Amino acid sequence: MNPNELRTLYHGYIDCLNSRNLDQLGEFVDADVEYNGTRVSLAGYQDMLKRDFEAIPDLYFNITLLCSEPPLIASRLDFNCTPSSTLFGIAVNGIRVQFSENVFYQFHSRRISRVWSVIDEAAIARQVKEARL
Amino acid sequence: MNPNELRTLYHGYIDCLNSRNLDQLGEFVDADVEYNGTRVSLAGYQDMLKRDFEAIPDLYFNITLLCSEPPLIASRLDFNCTPSSTLFGIAVNGIRVQFSENVFYQFHSRRISRVWSVIDEAAIARQVKEARL
Repeated sequence: MNPNELRTLYHGYIDCLNSRNLDQLGEFVDADVEYNGTRVSLAGYQDMLKRDFEAIPDLYFNITLLCSEPPLIASRLDFNCTPSSTLFGIAVNGIRVQFSENVFYQFHSRRISRVWSVIDEAAIARQVKEARL
Repeated sequence: MNPNELRTLYHGYIDCLNSRNLDQLGEFVDADVEYNGTRVSLAGYQDMLKRDFEAIPDLYFNITLLCSEPPLIASRLDFNCTPSSTLFGIAVNGIRVQFSENVFYQFHSRRISRVWSVIDEAAIARQVKEARL
C-alpha cells in the first residue's frame, strides 16, 4: 500500500466513526488491536468508542494533520464538543471544549492493529477551570 | 527531500537536543518557528528547551515511532526522567516518571517551521499521585 492508499483507508475509518457505524468497525480495526500498549480487541475498541459517544453526544473527529508512511499513519485530530458529564476525570458538565489528539496507527493487512494516542487532557482541564471563573 | 532524508535530518535535531548543543539549534529550527499555534521564534524555542533542561536535569529524547512524509514528520518520544521540582504545574519533586509526547513537525527549507505537540501530562500526574500513596 502506498501513502495515498493508506490515507484513503484511514479516511474511511474516520468516516465510520463520524457516522456512528460501529458495526462496520471490523472493516478497519484488527480483531487483536492494541491501544496504548494494552490488547483491547475489536470488541473492547467498540466499547471504548460507545462510551466516548455516550460521554460526548456531539463528538466529531476532525483530521487536521496526516502523515502517512505505511504501515504507519499519524493523525492530529481536533475536537470541538460538549462532554455531558465527566471526561478523563474532569467534571466538564456541558461546557464546550476544544482539544487535540495526536495519534499513531500501525496497520496490518489493511486494518489498524496498534494505536498510540496522546490526548491533550490538560487543555480540557484549563478550559473548564476558565469557564468556572 | 524523500522520507529517509527527512528522517536523517530529524535524527540530527534530536541528537542536537540530547547533546545539549543549543547553539547548533538554528541548523534545524527556522527563525520564525511556531509551536502549538504561537510564533515563538528560534530564540524562544531555545529558551523553552533551556527551561526544560533546567527543570529535568536527566531529560533525554528517545524516539520510539517515526512517520515521515515530507514536509511532515510525526514522532513519538518516550521520556524516563526525574523532574527536580514542578513540571506542567505538577509538583514532581524528584519522582521518576515515564511519559510520552506525540508530536508533528513541518519542515521548510530543511528546518522545522511548525510544531504541534501533545504531551501526556495526565500520565505524570497519575505517577506522582501513586508514588505519594
